[in-house]
Order: sequence, then structure tokens, then C-alpha cells
Amino acid sequence: MSLRGVPTAEVFQRAVDGERRALGRLLTLVERGGAAGDEIAEISHPKAGRCHVVGLTGAPGAGKSTITGRLAAAAGVATGDSHRGVGVVAIDPSSPITGGAILGDRIRMDEVIDREGTFVRSMATRGSSGGLALAVPGAIRVLDSVDYNPVIIETVGVGQVEVDIAGTADTTIVVVTPGWGDAVQANKAGLLEVADIFVVNKAERPGAADARRDLELMLDLGAHPEPGKPIWRAPIVMTTATDGIGIDDLWSEVENHREWLTETGELNARRQSRDRFEMLGRIDELLGAIGRARAQSPVGEQLLKRVESRELSPTAAAAELLADLLE
Amino acid sequence: MSLRGVPTAEVFQRAVDGERRALGRLLTLVERGGAAGDEIAEISHPKAGRCHVVGLTGAPGAGKSTITGRLAAAAGVATGDSHRGVGVVAIDPSSPITGGAILGDRIRMDEVIDREGTFVRSMATRGSSGGLALAVPGAIRVLDSVDYNPVIIETVGVGQVEVDIAGTADTTIVVVTPGWGDAVQANKAGLLEVADIFVVNKAERPGAADARRDLELMLDLGAHPEPGKPIWRAPIVMTTATDGIGIDDLWSEVENHREWLTETGELNARRQSRDRFEMLGRIDELLGAIGRARAQSPVGEQLLKRVESRELSPTAAAAELLADLLE
Repeated sequence: MSLRGVPTAEVFQRAVDGERRALGRLLTLVERGGAAGDEIAEISHPKAGRCHVVGLTGAPGAGKSTITGRLAAAAGVATGDSHRGVGVVAIDPSSPITGGAILGDRIRMDEVIDREGTFVRSMATRGSSGGLALAVPGAIRVLDSVDYNPVIIETVGVGQVEVDIAGTADTTIVVVTPGWGDAVQANKAGLLEVADIFVVNKAERPGAADARRDLELMLDLGAHPEPGKPIWRAPIVMTTATDGIGIDDLWSEVENHREWLTETGELNARRQSRDRFEMLGRIDELLGAIGRARAQSPVGEQLLKRVESRELSPTAAAAELLADLLE
Repeated sequence: MSLRGVPTAEVFQRAVDGERRALGRLLTLVERGGAAGDEIAEISHPKAGRCHVVGLTGAPGAGKSTITGRLAAAAGVATGDSHRGVGVVAIDPSSPITGGAILGDRIRMDEVIDREGTFVRSMATRGSSGGLALAVPGAIRVLDSVDYNPVIIETVGVGQVEVDIAGTADTTIVVVTPGWGDAVQANKAGLLEVADIFVVNKAERPGAADARRDLELMLDLGAHPEPGKPIWRAPIVMTTATDGIGIDDLWSEVENHREWLTETGELNARRQSRDRFEMLGRIDELLGAIGRARAQSPVGEQLLKRVESRELSPTAAAAELLADLLE
């Protein structure tokens, strides 16, 4: 039976009652945005705010999907019946270049963990960082509000958008592999900044000890304690995720970090910054619609003609179009 | 002698006079944005609008940098003394994953073509598609206004942002290689839509004829002539760019396409859509600043607190913050 036409509030109630298809439908509507997405945000927001959000990022091929699958299983065992299960939101790339490989990973992961008690959802980025910045917190909120806990957000690469999204989690795991240093040179600092826990995966390979030493050195160099701010030094966990080695240690470190967040008040700070991030995204979305409407108005079209005749630069035209808002 | 502190108008004049360092400085300021960037847009806009803009996109590893280098050389020979030279804007990825390889490409290309008569500029994406959408047309405008023609824009991959940027060119070249079909499955339609010319590079490899046949088939399937709209069927050029094979054919097709654009009036239509694209980008930039200012205002902070207490969803808070603009 299709859920099309069923009122959103009822779909939500069915998801609360445990109907997985209803939950899937909610997530589709959230990803799609628009009025239904807004309604779901209204319904789910008061019920959310309980789950622990774990972000997982790292270069493609580092084994993130396998780690996510194993970690979800470990988390499910650890939390037992205290919650409905573990939620996973996997960000699929808009870039089609690596599409095949990533789809392969996804299937592998789904085999491991898409079963009763774990809910896996893939989200396409559709080339829009703005869209993702809204869809991901919306999906977390839905899973949270129907009592999935923890929720793991797995991003596909280490681009700035993906690091930003992983970085809004309560606990962010950065996955590297032996020899990673050269591969992600350009964004090392960005990764270091967001990492609460490092994983050296494929730790059975040559160079794993070197990778660990590199990370330790970076952590030493990057340690700039701010007065009054509690200090957390990211632990480094060695794993061979394909064989499940090190996954229990990783889950222990997630639990340690969660305790630290709670004790120090950092948890509230992170959630505040996540709320701020999402609110800014919503503001951008609304303003974007205003901008497009103005650009398509007769005044906007006239300004565009003056740009074409090289009388006005696009910058000057935009400023003139928004003059009343700019004071 | 540094150009810091030299008035922008004078830097511009020096660039017009052929000082390459002054041109580099202008492009740096354009990329950086802000008041100096705006001033350069004002100075250069009336003088621009002459150059032919060629976009070049394709999956990493397809040989785009080599093709760009060879094509720039061919264009330089063809246009001779009628213009100052050939401009190249190469978009470097923000994603650090492939950083090493792409830097390697860049160095290779620079060796080939960064000499008197050709001006090569790399631009980092800095993870911001919005930033690129503004910086690229700004860079084209500067190169155009000091009489570089053509200007080649080389993007790094086939993600939506990159395809969008390449797609705003007058002539867009899409580079594929034997076996490309599986690799870029997800965005085939997007690539087909923007391509004015296809290149099958590494045409000496097995599968090149198949790649060509695939493209022909896609072009047949995708042919939906719109009434009253002139038809251009993208030619397919086979190249082995490392040996310079097929590059003259490619340049001929660029010239054919330019003639077609001019004869059919499509050139004006494309430039209008490029102006519109940039104006929308500037509008977004200005509105973004308004949004951030409001979010940081006392009212914005208060709304954020209500989000945190789960009284308001971020969506509702954003709508309340912008209520006066939304009517």
C-alpha cells in the first residue's frame, strides 16, 4: 500500500509505531524539502534532541562504509533495547566519477547492517551543498524523534562540504589509511580540526605505524589549549574493519567522548552550533527564493539588459536590485 | 617591486600595457572578492565582451590539462597577432583527495603553455561553489578586457558545479576516454546536455571506437529539436593529446562552433545566460551577508535559543527572522 496521500502527521505516527516504510517516506520528504519537509520538521523537532550523532569522514577507499557497518552493529549490541536501534545516513556523492565504487561499498554495508534494529538511508548530494546542509540535519531529526540512537552520518570524501557536515556531529571520526598523508595533504588541517577520534584502518598493512606517528605529531603540533576550554585529545584507534578488528575499541572511544562531552558541557555547545548551522541554511534558502524572484521581475530583467549592453557590471546590477535591503 | 598599494586603476592600466605581473595581481584580487574585486569588475566590464570562451570538462585522468595546453598552443598559432594571446583559467579542486595528481597535471601543462602569449591561471575552489561561480566570470572578464582571446576554462571533474561552470562557456568541450561510460554513469545526461564538442582522448587505446559509438548513440537518443531553435549536433573528435594528434581537428571544430553561434544568434543567448548566472551569484552573495547579519543580531540569537529549547524548528525560526521580507 502506498503512503502517497496519507497525511504527514499519520505517516509520522506510523514511523513512531515502528513501520519502517513510513520512516523511509518521511526521510524522502525531508530530502525533497518544500512544505511537507517543513511540516515534518515541525512535528519532529519537539521530540528530537536525544540521540548521539556520530560523523564519519575520510578519503574514498579508506573503508568508511565497512567501519560504519561494523560500528552500527557494535552500537546496537551496546545500547540493546534502550532505543529502537541505530540510524545511519550515508551521503552519496553527486560526483559521478566514483559512482560505481561507492555504490559497491553501499551494497556491502547494507548487507551487513540493514536489518531489524538498524535503519540505513542513503542521500544523494545532487551537487548542492546547500541542499545537503538542510537535508542532513532534517534526517537526523526524524531518526532521533522516532528513537534511533546513535545516528551515524557517513560522508563520502574529505572535501570542505563533507568535512563541515561531519564536523557538526557530536563525535566526529576521521578515517585514514597507511600512506594517507600525501593523499589528503591539502585538507590535513581541516581534518585535524574536526576529528574527535582518528581511525587508522587497514592497520595490517605496511605503514600503519607511520600513519599513527604522523597523527600523533599533528596532534602535538595542533594542540593549542584555549583558556577555560576543556581539552580533548583525539585518540587513535587501529582497525582492520573487514575482519572487525578494533571496532569494539572504536565504540568504547565513542562512548568515552560522549561522556566527556556531557561532563564538560561541550555537548550543548556542539548542538547549539548545529542548530545555528541549520538555521543559517534555512535563512539562505528563503533569501535565495527572494533573490530569484527579484531577478525574474521586470526590474531584474531590465537590469540584466543593462549588464548585457555593458552599461552595468553584474555586481552593480545586483546591488541596485537589492538597494532597499542594503539600506 | 610589489603591486600592493598601487591603485587598482593603475594596476589595470599596467595589465593593459602588457605587464603580466599586473594581470596576475588583478586576477588575485578578483578571486579574493570584496571591494577591490568590485572595482575591477567596474573597470573591466565595459571593455570586455569580445573573447570566445571555451569550457573544457571531463573526468579526472581524461587528459584535460594536456588537451588544454595543446589547444591553447593551436589557438595561439591560429589567431596569431590579432589578439594579445590565449587565456587559460584552470579550476583546481578543493577536494584534497586527488590534489597530488592534479598538481602534477598542472605543472605539466604550465611547462607546455605558460610562455609569452599565453596566460595560465589556476584557481582553487576553496570548497565554495558560490565563490567559484563569481570568481570564474570575473577572471574571464579581466582576461577579455586586456584582449586575451580565446579564454579556455578547464574544470577538474564532472560534478554538477563543474559542469555548470563549463556549461556557461560559449563552446563547451567534454573529454571522455575509452571505457568512460561506466565511470561517469550518474552524470551522463548532464554532460550530454552541455557538450558542444566531444573529445575521445587516448584514442589509441582499445575501446576508443566503442566510446565513439556510445556517444553517437547518446546523441541520437538525446536529439530533441525544439521548434525554432537552431540545431547543433556535437561533433566527436578523436585525440591522442600527449602526441598532439587530433588537436588541429579539435580547434577547427571550435571555430566551426563559433561561426554557428554567431550565425544563429546563439552567441548572444549564451552570453545573456552567462550574465544572468553571474548576476544571480552576486545577488546570492549580497543576500547571504544580509542573512548572516540578521542571524547574529539580538533577535536572531533569541530565535536560536528558542530552537535550542525545541520550542521552534530552525525552519520556523528562519521564517520568523525574515518575516518582513517574505510579506
